[in-house]
Amino acid sequence: MEFRTHFCNELRKEHVNKQVFLSGWVQRRRDLGGVIFVDLRDRTGIVQLVFRSDIDSEALQLADRLRNEYVIRVEGKVVIRDLEAVNPKLETGEIEVEVQRLHILNAAKNPPFQIEEDVEVDESLRLRYRYLDLRRANMFNTFMMRHRVYQVIRTFLDRYGFLEVETPMLTKSTPEGARDYLVPSRVHPGEFYALPQSPQLFKQLLMVSGFERYFQIVRCFRDEDLRADRQPEFTQLDIETSFLSMEQLQEMMEEMIVEIFSRVLQVHVARPFLRLTYQEAMERFGSDKPDLRFGMELIDLSQELAACGFKVFREALQKGGQVKALVAPGCGGFSRKELDDLTKFVARYKAKGLAWMIVAEEGIRSPIAKFFTEEELQSIVTATAANIGDLILFVADKKKIVADALGALRLHLGKLIGAIDEQAYAFAWITEFPLLEYDEDEHRYVAVHHPFTMPMVEDLEYLESNPGAVRAQAYDMVLNGYEIGGGSMRIYQREVQERMFASLGFTEEAARAQFGFLLDAFDYGTPPHGGIAFGMDRLMMVMSGQSSLRDVIAFPKTASGTDLLTGAPAPVAQEQLEILHLATKGIAE
Amino acid sequence: MEFRTHFCNELRKEHVNKQVFLSGWVQRRRDLGGVIFVDLRDRTGIVQLVFRSDIDSEALQLADRLRNEYVIRVEGKVVIRDLEAVNPKLETGEIEVEVQRLHILNAAKNPPFQIEEDVEVDESLRLRYRYLDLRRANMFNTFMMRHRVYQVIRTFLDRYGFLEVETPMLTKSTPEGARDYLVPSRVHPGEFYALPQSPQLFKQLLMVSGFERYFQIVRCFRDEDLRADRQPEFTQLDIETSFLSMEQLQEMMEEMIVEIFSRVLQVHVARPFLRLTYQEAMERFGSDKPDLRFGMELIDLSQELAACGFKVFREALQKGGQVKALVAPGCGGFSRKELDDLTKFVARYKAKGLAWMIVAEEGIRSPIAKFFTEEELQSIVTATAANIGDLILFVADKKKIVADALGALRLHLGKLIGAIDEQAYAFAWITEFPLLEYDEDEHRYVAVHHPFTMPMVEDLEYLESNPGAVRAQAYDMVLNGYEIGGGSMRIYQREVQERMFASLGFTEEAARAQFGFLLDAFDYGTPPHGGIAFGMDRLMMVMSGQSSLRDVIAFPKTASGTDLLTGAPAPVAQEQLEILHLATKGIAE
Repeated sequence: MEFRTHFCNELRKEHVNKQVFLSGWVQRRRDLGGVIFVDLRDRTGIVQLVFRSDIDSEALQLADRLRNEYVIRVEGKVVIRDLEAVNPKLETGEIEVEVQRLHILNAAKNPPFQIEEDVEVDESLRLRYRYLDLRRANMFNTFMMRHRVYQVIRTFLDRYGFLEVETPMLTKSTPEGARDYLVPSRVHPGEFYALPQSPQLFKQLLMVSGFERYFQIVRCFRDEDLRADRQPEFTQLDIETSFLSMEQLQEMMEEMIVEIFSRVLQVHVARPFLRLTYQEAMERFGSDKPDLRFGMELIDLSQELAACGFKVFREALQKGGQVKALVAPGCGGFSRKELDDLTKFVARYKAKGLAWMIVAEEGIRSPIAKFFTEEELQSIVTATAANIGDLILFVADKKKIVADALGALRLHLGKLIGAIDEQAYAFAWITEFPLLEYDEDEHRYVAVHHPFTMPMVEDLEYLESNPGAVRAQAYDMVLNGYEIGGGSMRIYQREVQERMFASLGFTEEAARAQFGFLLDAFDYGTPPHGGIAFGMDRLMMVMSGQSSLRDVIAFPKTASGTDLLTGAPAPVAQEQLEILHLATKGIAE
Repeated sequence: MEFRTHFCNELRKEHVNKQVFLSGWVQRRRDLGGVIFVDLRDRTGIVQLVFRSDIDSEALQLADRLRNEYVIRVEGKVVIRDLEAVNPKLETGEIEVEVQRLHILNAAKNPPFQIEEDVEVDESLRLRYRYLDLRRANMFNTFMMRHRVYQVIRTFLDRYGFLEVETPMLTKSTPEGARDYLVPSRVHPGEFYALPQSPQLFKQLLMVSGFERYFQIVRCFRDEDLRADRQPEFTQLDIETSFLSMEQLQEMMEEMIVEIFSRVLQVHVARPFLRLTYQEAMERFGSDKPDLRFGMELIDLSQELAACGFKVFREALQKGGQVKALVAPGCGGFSRKELDDLTKFVARYKAKGLAWMIVAEEGIRSPIAKFFTEEELQSIVTATAANIGDLILFVADKKKIVADALGALRLHLGKLIGAIDEQAYAFAWITEFPLLEYDEDEHRYVAVHHPFTMPMVEDLEYLESNPGAVRAQAYDMVLNGYEIGGGSMRIYQREVQERMFASLGFTEEAARAQFGFLLDAFDYGTPPHGGIAFGMDRLMMVMSGQSSLRDVIAFPKTASGTDLLTGAPAPVAQEQLEILHLATKGIAE
């Protein structure tokens, strides 16, 4: 059976008088008494079908049975519409198809929600009937965009000599990083594979093998407590290179991103990307993934207010903390309630309070103005460059709390007052991340990026004496406040890797047991190498303008890791567990 | 640091006098007393470096420390070689590089095996040091070929409007088919995800969604007992289409395969591919994946010998079996031992014996000739078209044993006597597979392909009355005796799917519990659809001329599912199991 000669949205005026076959779904049926109009939909779009007794009475009769979402095949003739019947909203609006033969391929029940763009539907219903949700044009367009991005990436990387190599999914559990998903082995009772959190070790081994340029668009897994923007499985564009400097790698990656945006979104992104050190990003934006589409930077007033009369500020500074401010332009008229809401907002980030000052014609208006000298007030206005009508907001606390609270407040206010250009794409590299951070729970240093990250050469000597001060040759690419990629140059010398493991508190035996094969590999001629991984789900979310990762994943899971469509995870037969030498344990009935 | 201006194998005569940076591995070092020659290798090939005191004595001194597989960076000048020093085996053999500066990036221990093409190395050693094994040029070339094939596939499918969509890896266990790998859920104690054996249901749901053309190069998992040509995880090119006839889909797939072979191997493959029904393939070749690079077809002599005097044949026929023969051309001179070996060979396939006749000048020579009339002997020669000097081999047994034994014997002899053109690529479609086969263990019919396969329309009426006779709209693509792809048109009507589940012995509740979401989907407008999946590992094995799947997978597992490099699977911390509410059970200490 010939299902179609054309897609619906291919038909135009130049097809008039053509005999065509079309197949698709009934988007809508209108019965005008003796004439039935059907909007036929396929993945390209919609075309109007006409059923009339003077065309074919059998087809007309059958058309009476059509309901929304029926699957049909028609044969008919393309005709021009009368001028008054032209539908400018449809790309095919100048023509319609007079149907001579109708074939109902499948009937359809009334869907649980309407399959149209702007219908608000409960998300759990959408996920349960995901196959219907995906019928909506904006969903299809999102996945078409994802497809396009993947093809552009691969074409780009192929051009630069990157090799696509597949790495194992059934691999070994490593104790560093997030929790692994485990896969029991049937053949080796009591032993387990782990699903990869990333192909990190394998891609490094490919560099040892001399592959020099590797990439893979690959599924990764983390058994973490899920948040709105996490999924248990996620897709990463994984890249590794040898014999390239950090700068050369970054330039290549910029070029790739620019090509994606230009070819898929027709958006020109300027190069080179802005570069901010981690320290600068934290100081100016309170975040290591700053949204650079707008200003409202954080201003450090610790020096200016070191000796001020406001106890809260002074004590914070005396304890080694900071006083920082940001200016909300034109927000001088905020109500008491609005200000209270901002205080509540920063409280979520552990800030004990939020001080404010309004720059008015007559001077500073603020409940705390009295605690400051005129000179101090002036220095605040000068340092913040606040104008009349602006609101200045202060947090005084430990450095981390100040950054978290004001960084989040900046984003919150930026959205609230419309300071963010929603059409803009603001990229930057964040560099010089700390190599290690102290984990209070584990009483040891842990790797900020991962244990294979190369320290900055000038900091290497402090690896033992002052581990917290060592910076890494690590970098993130940020876009509009999201970390879309992160990478590092890797350790490639055994001795440095052993020092790194020691800094992380590994005994020699523990390092050997977990990563012996990597240490061994370092013995056989490992080249200088480094790489990066991009979070494709997040990138697609930003590119498609969606607000949830679930909208860019075809079959996503809920926050509790459930697939509402298939019901996974689910209990399995006892026999399946026995074969694996496993029993469930300690589950409340 | 600038690591390189050129790759090693880029350098030619036209680069003479150029100043270059090169980076790579020491393939070999020769010390000729005062002059050191080093073959420098990167992934493109090899170039010769020269260290001499009149070029730079410091570099010469340092070069003395170089050993095989050291990683180095050099700066030097390209010079022409003396005519007698030209190495025609090297593409760079007309030039060499005089090294002015040497930088040792990393030392290397002596590798556990030599990194050269033709060195025979124990496979477990190769797998343990996979990163060194992958350094060999033929390994690199295999993965380069795999990379090329993937790019050609995607470009082709993109051109035809296929969308790459990712389907979940953490999905639901289904009892049909092979054993699933399970993944315990931490959040839902006692529940499990399963790793997909294929994205079958998801790709069908994408058709329900109207995506119309889907593809994915995707990892799949089967917890089966492994054989030489199986891996627990394997990669499949997964394809699904709507509104295409079976023939249209097959044509498109042929075109894709032709394009792969032409663009990657520069081999022209003729279209259309040969089409054989399952029945014809079994009759003529004793296999549903016949190697069509040579003849030696099976000849059914059941009719000719129905009343023959040879009891073994006659009784096999009386029990409903078959007598079939194949001709080994020119093998009339086989020794008694050679003939005995053939008998042992077919015994592996449960054949109780192997009869033979030699066509000699003077007539048939055979221990069983005396049991046949002259007319019967003549009819054997006529039917088999055997010539003088040929050997005719017979198996008489149940149909399945005859096919298995003679099918395998055909391949064995074909290789033995060099009847197979190793340069040829013989493609075919095998069609009209049986829909169901009776499983003696489970005492029920099981799906030959899978439970979603559409029966042939003309056989549908026998689905209940004679399930074993129903043929499926299923097809395999075979190449040189391997099944490289298999697919089917799918059931798209709920009523047919329910009948299919009933034929498989599912109660309504069981079908609902396992596949309720699919049955539901059929209610909402499912288009006619069908697809195919190609086994990429096997295709790459054939294309690269390797004999093991392990040679086309970067980090493969052994026959017991072990990764000798990382040691996976491995025991995990007790704590990891407790978090998952699991305990190991019944494991002998």
